[in-house]
Amino acid sequence: MANFGFARLAVVNPYDVAFREARSAVGAAPLLQKAEEFASVAEAVADCRLVVGTTSLGHRELHHPLRRLEFGARLIKRSLAQAPVALLFGSEKFGLSNQDLSHCHWLMRIPTVDQDLSMNLGQAVALCLWELARDSKAAMARPEKPRAATAGETEQIATRLADALARSGYINPGTAASTEEKIRRLVLRLNIGARDATVLLGMLRQILWKLNAPRGGGKHQTCEGETP
Amino acid sequence: MANFGFARLAVVNPYDVAFREARSAVGAAPLLQKAEEFASVAEAVADCRLVVGTTSLGHRELHHPLRRLEFGARLIKRSLAQAPVALLFGSEKFGLSNQDLSHCHWLMRIPTVDQDLSMNLGQAVALCLWELARDSKAAMARPEKPRAATAGETEQIATRLADALARSGYINPGTAASTEEKIRRLVLRLNIGARDATVLLGMLRQILWKLNAPRGGGKHQTCEGETP
Repeated sequence: MANFGFARLAVVNPYDVAFREARSAVGAAPLLQKAEEFASVAEAVADCRLVVGTTSLGHRELHHPLRRLEFGARLIKRSLAQAPVALLFGSEKFGLSNQDLSHCHWLMRIPTVDQDLSMNLGQAVALCLWELARDSKAAMARPEKPRAATAGETEQIATRLADALARSGYINPGTAASTEEKIRRLVLRLNIGARDATVLLGMLRQILWKLNAPRGGGKHQTCEGETP
Repeated sequence: MANFGFARLAVVNPYDVAFREARSAVGAAPLLQKAEEFASVAEAVADCRLVVGTTSLGHRELHHPLRRLEFGARLIKRSLAQAPVALLFGSEKFGLSNQDLSHCHWLMRIPTVDQDLSMNLGQAVALCLWELARDSKAAMARPEKPRAATAGETEQIATRLADALARSGYINPGTAASTEEKIRRLVLRLNIGARDATVLLGMLRQILWKLNAPRGGGKHQTCEGETP
């Protein structure tokens, strides 16, 4: 509830000892401390204009309209804009009783693979509140892409890589030109970001330095992350 | 995982005693029994073509592309159609380490109200898998409506209600016609379903029977649920 900004927790007939202990515990969540306690569902939902029950099984025999979470959440969001809505959860063990359900305008179910496999209460609550909090437009939004390397940087990487490969004996002098093109195309396909280009250029510079150094000679030089 | 049909759980370096106990417990979930154990993230994700890390904070300093759950799940779904995808979760206490994150192509975050308030691991997993399992088209689908009462049934209810009200002295003879119209409009607005119409007709029949019975006379008659 706190993760998704839902502030009002009403508890009906909680197991007294456990509830009082949890509530008065040092470091108890503010939400739990402010939880209201009621003797009946009727009192708990009295000021709500919409009461939605949650169920795994559907309780079809009760003839309640039964909505999938995706659709139900959309209806709840619309109602929430106008008046408080109660979302009713039953106990971990037994769910909502028929009497609890008789206070509900309609029921909502989380569509799962195996209807006989019950869902953890805390997870069910999290899913319902997430479905209310999620931004369906965000699913379509394009994420920020990291800034790409410039063509100049990419070319410099390809050149240094070709240079290092030539000095390592990878490039056959007879096909050097076509190999260099292959290298350039490969480097382009990597879609290197601006930050990574700097790092890669530093790595290649260091490798080239080592490849050019006289065997066994020269002190070790590091230039990790150095801007070329 | 079982609720939403995800079958393959890989565990990296679990706390041995607890994991073995949970796994071999009588009644352990089949999913847990089949869980694979790995010594490193690299081995656990080796056959996946996409590795997505989950994070609450974003770890912006690591320059990973960071996607909201709504968008990230869409990308994962697309990849899942072609090859296995690894969704990486850290420990409840510490989350994923920088080393774990270095195996990830990108990161996904659950957008919460308060970024400093961490989310329960089980709930975070449930949300991510739900976002992968949910049917965005279902949000738009119209739910089945219960069959509405026929105009004839509705009219019969209005007539019986007006009858009962007249016998109770509710209707002023001078405005009887307009009151009857008001009653009919009210009954229409109730959008009574076919099943409820039968029940209401039975209730009204019983009330009319009692209203028509001679004072103190007549045996109690019940006809609850009877089809009129």
